[in-house]
Amino acid sequence: MNRYLLGIDIGGTKVEAAIARTNNVAPGRGEPARQVLGRATVLTANEGGRAVLDSVEQAIAGALADGQIDREAVSAAGVGVPGQVDTGQGIVRLAVNLNLNSFPLGQELARSLGGIPVRLENDVRLAAIGLYEALTSGPAAEPIRHLAYLSIGTGVAVGVVLNGVLYRGAGGMAGEIGHIIVEPDGALCPCGLRGCLETVASGPAIARQAAALPGLTGDLGPQPDAAGVYAAARQGHPQASQLVQRVSGHLARAIHWVAMAYDVERIILGGGVAAAGDAFWSPIAAELQQLREMSTLAHQMLPEERVTTLRHMRGVPEPFNPGVWGALALADQP
Amino acid sequence: MNRYLLGIDIGGTKVEAAIARTNNVAPGRGEPARQVLGRATVLTANEGGRAVLDSVEQAIAGALADGQIDREAVSAAGVGVPGQVDTGQGIVRLAVNLNLNSFPLGQELARSLGGIPVRLENDVRLAAIGLYEALTSGPAAEPIRHLAYLSIGTGVAVGVVLNGVLYRGAGGMAGEIGHIIVEPDGALCPCGLRGCLETVASGPAIARQAAALPGLTGDLGPQPDAAGVYAAARQGHPQASQLVQRVSGHLARAIHWVAMAYDVERIILGGGVAAAGDAFWSPIAAELQQLREMSTLAHQMLPEERVTTLRHMRGVPEPFNPGVWGALALADQP
Repeated sequence: MNRYLLGIDIGGTKVEAAIARTNNVAPGRGEPARQVLGRATVLTANEGGRAVLDSVEQAIAGALADGQIDREAVSAAGVGVPGQVDTGQGIVRLAVNLNLNSFPLGQELARSLGGIPVRLENDVRLAAIGLYEALTSGPAAEPIRHLAYLSIGTGVAVGVVLNGVLYRGAGGMAGEIGHIIVEPDGALCPCGLRGCLETVASGPAIARQAAALPGLTGDLGPQPDAAGVYAAARQGHPQASQLVQRVSGHLARAIHWVAMAYDVERIILGGGVAAAGDAFWSPIAAELQQLREMSTLAHQMLPEERVTTLRHMRGVPEPFNPGVWGALALADQP
Repeated sequence: MNRYLLGIDIGGTKVEAAIARTNNVAPGRGEPARQVLGRATVLTANEGGRAVLDSVEQAIAGALADGQIDREAVSAAGVGVPGQVDTGQGIVRLAVNLNLNSFPLGQELARSLGGIPVRLENDVRLAAIGLYEALTSGPAAEPIRHLAYLSIGTGVAVGVVLNGVLYRGAGGMAGEIGHIIVEPDGALCPCGLRGCLETVASGPAIARQAAALPGLTGDLGPQPDAAGVYAAARQGHPQASQLVQRVSGHLARAIHWVAMAYDVERIILGGGVAAAGDAFWSPIAAELQQLREMSTLAHQMLPEERVTTLRHMRGVPEPFNPGVWGALALADQP
């Protein structure tokens, strides 16, 4: 019997939904676990609970129409949220970019979907699940057991799959490495500490640092964003290059920490800042190469094939949003 | 039917062995998993494989005599080694302090013990297993699932129990955080990188830093060790206090990283440097308290009861060497 599943990824700017059929195959058999039949993307109305819910409903309706599947045929849904989630209760505790605070998104969606199970999870963690499933299923399946997805965007965090399953930690905070201290006397972080990784390497932090450089604001305007900084650095702008160098050094060290902490077989970089592509990745790759040349241990822990970005990786289905993939996997859990 | 198990912890200076009887109780029943019947400690002859093996044999003979158990009654053994271990093959890959390099310690011991299973593991990881088992069994059992043991001695590393089981990572290197970079332009580490945590906070690193301070060498002699530095700081020696302050800041941030990376319910500090007791712990506790006061998130992730040292913790059996405990647990695995 076929089961139809909904996977939804709620981002700060868009909501993406997919409807899929499970293939009822055992994992590791070299076949994809499920087949996507329909997709839809809508802009996120991020003015609080009701507005977000409306966007999600629109995306669901679009995906169902695209796949020609009846709403009544859906047996479960998984939802990725950019923020802190109470997975047991189906409540979004805090999602700043969606203006959600203790909103029972899971319960509301379950009601509108006729009482089927609706599971929520943090979007970075879902992407880790999605990447793991994509890499370990299908004809090109790799025999990996451990993976980290490092998201660099509005925030910085890592989602980890260890021994084949998502690791959340005691309070669901495992991998919130945006708040490890990298510059003890650095900039004040919204979390209250000084010099957290997010105060250096997140999108807003890159923009803030750029705004303080007259040479950059002169060329890029008074409010340069991270993408603008990376583009300028790519074209040889000296101040932009210096800033990108600084950010890349911190990110390379963060990648090295992730390798030492979790000893995973794959570290994949994604998120809004990583979307700058080669301009983002090349300076990090150069920093990592330097660590490898300095240290046999660093080379052992960070071989070239172990680290990549979403944009540069191979072996995933097209079109591929790991958040949606992870949301489908979450919906598919027994 | 009773089973007798051997647990052995090989340290750079001494080998400790224990013989125990399994109680054949299900875990989590509020009863200790096994009962120690005999113990022995001998000095480590650390001049390579044959010498180390002799020390281990002596410790085993001592424990068996102490417990009045026949060698033939032993059904399995677990062994903790201060270094890199190939757990599958029973080989010590590299244990610098024992002068071992690719030595088949597991096979040799299995032979001398009549062919019973002998399992090797890194000593820091075994201590994590031992602490986890001690805290989650017995009448005062705590319902924890995740624990980190941070060892600060000749090296710095963390052993983690996640979801109730030891996490080793893809290559058995998970938690080797002594080699995360904390000072990008810092001292050269034997691993080849600059400014690894071990170049600041390990026992030899504290000694090296102290040796470069004329005010300290004048008072402590030309080769001050970490224990001497901590004792001098405790007595108000200004240069020693400054050095301890620096080390404690780095260790507090490392503890914070461990909390953010793994989100564990307990972080326990041990190892030779931590043996300095209050002189070691008080300045770290003060640094952690400062982080809590700055940040709600830091407070949430590092509540006071979450972090302690082996010397300060409650709820463990006496006398308690978590390495031996973990070695017994390893021997007890099916």
